Amino acid sequence: MMKRAQIVEPLKPLLITEISIPKPPQNGAVIKTCFSGICHSDLNQWRNYIDQGEFKKHFTDNPNYVLPIVPGHEISGVVYSLGEASAENIKVGDRVVVYPWIGCGTCGYCVNDNTPLCDRRHHGVGIGAPGGYATYVQVPDTKFVVKVPDSVPLNVACMLPCSGLTTFSAVKVAKVAVEKTTLYKGKASLLVIGSGGLGLWCLQLARSLLPPTTKIVAADINEKSLKVASEQGFECIHWNLEMTKEEASKMAASKSYDGSYDCVIDVVNSSWTAEKAFGCSHRGSTIVMVGLFGGAFKLPLPQMVHGARTLQGVLTGVLPDLRELVQLVEKKSLTPPPIIYFSLDDAYEGMCRLNEGKLQGRGIIKYDG
Amino acid sequence: MMKRAQIVEPLKPLLITEISIPKPPQNGAVIKTCFSGICHSDLNQWRNYIDQGEFKKHFTDNPNYVLPIVPGHEISGVVYSLGEASAENIKVGDRVVVYPWIGCGTCGYCVNDNTPLCDRRHHGVGIGAPGGYATYVQVPDTKFVVKVPDSVPLNVACMLPCSGLTTFSAVKVAKVAVEKTTLYKGKASLLVIGSGGLGLWCLQLARSLLPPTTKIVAADINEKSLKVASEQGFECIHWNLEMTKEEASKMAASKSYDGSYDCVIDVVNSSWTAEKAFGCSHRGSTIVMVGLFGGAFKLPLPQMVHGARTLQGVLTGVLPDLRELVQLVEKKSLTPPPIIYFSLDDAYEGMCRLNEGKLQGRGIIKYDG
Repeated sequence: MMKRAQIVEPLKPLLITEISIPKPPQNGAVIKTCFSGICHSDLNQWRNYIDQGEFKKHFTDNPNYVLPIVPGHEISGVVYSLGEASAENIKVGDRVVVYPWIGCGTCGYCVNDNTPLCDRRHHGVGIGAPGGYATYVQVPDTKFVVKVPDSVPLNVACMLPCSGLTTFSAVKVAKVAVEKTTLYKGKASLLVIGSGGLGLWCLQLARSLLPPTTKIVAADINEKSLKVASEQGFECIHWNLEMTKEEASKMAASKSYDGSYDCVIDVVNSSWTAEKAFGCSHRGSTIVMVGLFGGAFKLPLPQMVHGARTLQGVLTGVLPDLRELVQLVEKKSLTPPPIIYFSLDDAYEGMCRLNEGKLQGRGIIKYDG
Repeated sequence: MMKRAQIVEPLKPLLITEISIPKPPQNGAVIKTCFSGICHSDLNQWRNYIDQGEFKKHFTDNPNYVLPIVPGHEISGVVYSLGEASAENIKVGDRVVVYPWIGCGTCGYCVNDNTPLCDRRHHGVGIGAPGGYATYVQVPDTKFVVKVPDSVPLNVACMLPCSGLTTFSAVKVAKVAVEKTTLYKGKASLLVIGSGGLGLWCLQLARSLLPPTTKIVAADINEKSLKVASEQGFECIHWNLEMTKEEASKMAASKSYDGSYDCVIDVVNSSWTAEKAFGCSHRGSTIVMVGLFGGAFKLPLPQMVHGARTLQGVLTGVLPDLRELVQLVEKKSLTPPPIIYFSLDDAYEGMCRLNEGKLQGRGIIKYDG
């Protein structure tokens, strides 16, 4: 038997039940879950909407998404069983992570590895199909199961398919922007807004992948989160919600090379942070929007043109990038965010603490055995 | 003697005066003006501000910009005199256009040919320094003077340094987006918002440079402008200002391949059009913001992320691209926008008609002899 936690009704506690362990699909696998991250997107599913500034769009408007749902898309574990088709990349017992952004598999996006943009609308493990808030997880195709090198612990590995991969994609966008600016100015300044589970990955990856001349600065309203970033050697800016755009950008300016930032990665992406991100940009800047906090931002249109600014939304990442990221984490000694463990029974408590902004680092469901 | 028209006071008629023909700077040239385009940016200078949605920023806040000013940055003419330094690319009597986005010449942007983003703030011919609303124009360095092939008429050539170059830059951004989508979907849809002086160049360049499978559609509120686009063989959408975002995007959807646009180039970029541009985008779309109409747009932040959208501001273009564009116009038979001629004495009337949205095509000052 397996145990699972389900969102049955929006804004209500998760329902814990037991069912039989699923059979592996013909081309797929069943993974015995070891660790499963608690992501802000799980909260959006639990609320059944994201604030879009103008209107509420419910998850259940998407016909691929029907309650009840087992959330959880940050999964590491071991291969428990394989389908009838032979798998070349994995065998039973292998330590693995699951690439959760699976898509339909047949549209032009999917066949070109851009499954997060699947034409038939995004669905995958933990979003539409049952996810990692369960002791066993079914994966439709073994190609979405990625082996984890022995030197990478599974509690760290579980974060790679979402918080790791998403910030990896964001830093790849930032790399283009920073290298362009470095050509023009000899060096560049990067601001990362948010120092929680995503922000700390982002800072580590930025340090690892950007030119060494890059000034990397962390901003957050949460002093405890910033403390972690500071201990990892990053310069920090402590904002508070009462600050105006001008006050916040003035404070941030003092840490940059030339009074503003050539690239801003906003892993929160709320109305409040998006305004600050824009205020901290200047001519030629790229703003990378990553977070799904929700909200809207009143964009001053001529500044987009006069500053030749770029706003780039980043949605998770592609499967080849997850493989690349796993190798990168093996090679480079990246410091993962602090981990706060929860049992499956306490997963709902973990979600509530994340919702209240009271998790410094990444909440992770740890399974026994 | 030379004759010039100056903005002396915001929102007042231009002042026509006569002064001596200037001497060429040591490395520069004096151009005898043949044609000078009337650009929407001239109106912004005349008003001395652009609506940024939140605040007014006056041109005269920029210390490089002091009234009175001779506007005009779309200049074609013949080389009248050269400075003491020898010029390799031009000689007296050559038919030329002037690259007006000159910059300081020493910052990292300028030495790498990205003069529009000059670190010491943008200034150039017709913006900060005297421009083409005059019978003679001084250019500080001959490298900013570009020869025009015999087969390209000077009345067409004058549009290349601003309306041509800006839309050329925009289409280059669109090309990347359209080619990416074509990989995923086999073909792509492009919407060009605005069919005036910029929009018509944009449509022509898009047809010339994008994959032949691309569906190119023009949208405007001005039926007369659309008529020109339609006569050039483009599918057209006639919006009106009473339309909601939903109504406008529904109307646009019917002309696209799959109900939305993979790329939108907004050459107006007002609050009204930016909202419609976003409404006509979908997953993976790129919105290229070109126009300086002014205003702000309430950007729904999660849609940037879930749709992995790109918003790219485009500010004119670089000098090598102007050279490339001049060659392109020579090679390909691009149809220029209709031209409405004004004398220098009537330049103010041309500005007023542009301001009232009553110019179908490009207003151009034509000089005698």
